[in-house]
Amino acid sequence: MTHSTDSILEDLTYRYATKEFQRDQRIAPELLNCIEQSLILTPSSFGLQPWKFFIISDQTLKDKLVEHSWNQQQVSQCSELVVLTAQAPISERHIDEFLESQIAIRGGSMEELSGYKSLMIGFINNMSEEQKLQWAKQQVYIALGQLLTICATLKIDACPMEGIQPAQYDKVLGLSGTEYSTTLACPIGYRSENDAYAQMSKVRFPVEKIVEHIQ
Amino acid sequence: MTHSTDSILEDLTYRYATKEFQRDQRIAPELLNCIEQSLILTPSSFGLQPWKFFIISDQTLKDKLVEHSWNQQQVSQCSELVVLTAQAPISERHIDEFLESQIAIRGGSMEELSGYKSLMIGFINNMSEEQKLQWAKQQVYIALGQLLTICATLKIDACPMEGIQPAQYDKVLGLSGTEYSTTLACPIGYRSENDAYAQMSKVRFPVEKIVEHIQ
Repeated sequence: MTHSTDSILEDLTYRYATKEFQRDQRIAPELLNCIEQSLILTPSSFGLQPWKFFIISDQTLKDKLVEHSWNQQQVSQCSELVVLTAQAPISERHIDEFLESQIAIRGGSMEELSGYKSLMIGFINNMSEEQKLQWAKQQVYIALGQLLTICATLKIDACPMEGIQPAQYDKVLGLSGTEYSTTLACPIGYRSENDAYAQMSKVRFPVEKIVEHIQ
Repeated sequence: MTHSTDSILEDLTYRYATKEFQRDQRIAPELLNCIEQSLILTPSSFGLQPWKFFIISDQTLKDKLVEHSWNQQQVSQCSELVVLTAQAPISERHIDEFLESQIAIRGGSMEELSGYKSLMIGFINNMSEEQKLQWAKQQVYIALGQLLTICATLKIDACPMEGIQPAQYDKVLGLSGTEYSTTLACPIGYRSENDAYAQMSKVRFPVEKIVEHIQ
């Protein structure tokens, strides 16, 4: 075990949905690299990684996306804006590429993996178009969960946002008509000392409502 | 910053979807408590926590759920089986309870929070019944992402499972007809030294396919 339980819970308690970021405080390249790597390492169903992540540092672009984020200023104030997009539908080509990656890394051959390929194709084809998108989006929420946890561990602040205009984001990012669609945005950076929300205690239901042990 | 980027990435690389657990190796109470607290601290939309988590140590119950998990033996072998359920639809009563918690923790009054309450009720009521369930499920996937990350940090092994029979889980857990419905299962514990998958390198798409920097 690398980390103490106390430090983990302290980090998770320190985390909050940041309402105001410190404009001039940038995330160090080493930490940004760790976040990028952790996004790549996110678990997904079958390991299929039905997603693409944008890490936006460009100030003009961040400013432009504010209006498509119901004017939430964190999108402009943050050090980096992470946009998490879902890939749907997953194509047979994508599954082939996944298996080719696997062969390159672990060895084996397409013939040996044909049963596994059929399993994945059957799983995907068994879903409606709507379900395929939903499945991919759910994987993206795993990535959000991991991103927020890793940011907390690095004492980087974040503000997960469902309330954005995905179609407008898609247009700005050049995703309209592609297999990728914006699912979530997450400005990351450092809290402003003016953000009164940083001082507030977390609101959680009593443990008895949320967790049931069966022993 | 409490943890080094190297140790974080080492933990995330050590993590894998465990195919075989060591039956007799139990998670220590202190670590299990950390996992429970981290589940409670999971971020959610509006902080509404539309979920309930079951932490199952009972061997008879774990054994019984194997058949509703496509016979995946990890459900029986693991130290604890975490079942993540989504709450839908969110009721006005739930929102009132949430605000009452907030007032108990942060102060304020229902009158002062009436605008905030209307905002949340409007958000919920704007969704169809199907969308309400989908929204709650997505929040549960954030919890899964945080759970997997925290387990990795504690060097506890896990195997996230979408492929279970939720309705059967609901029946066994007494959830049928309630507002809670099984979304995901996640056996946690320690990998068996017989699990060949533990030694395999992670398969990930090249960074250029997954991450785009806009600088």
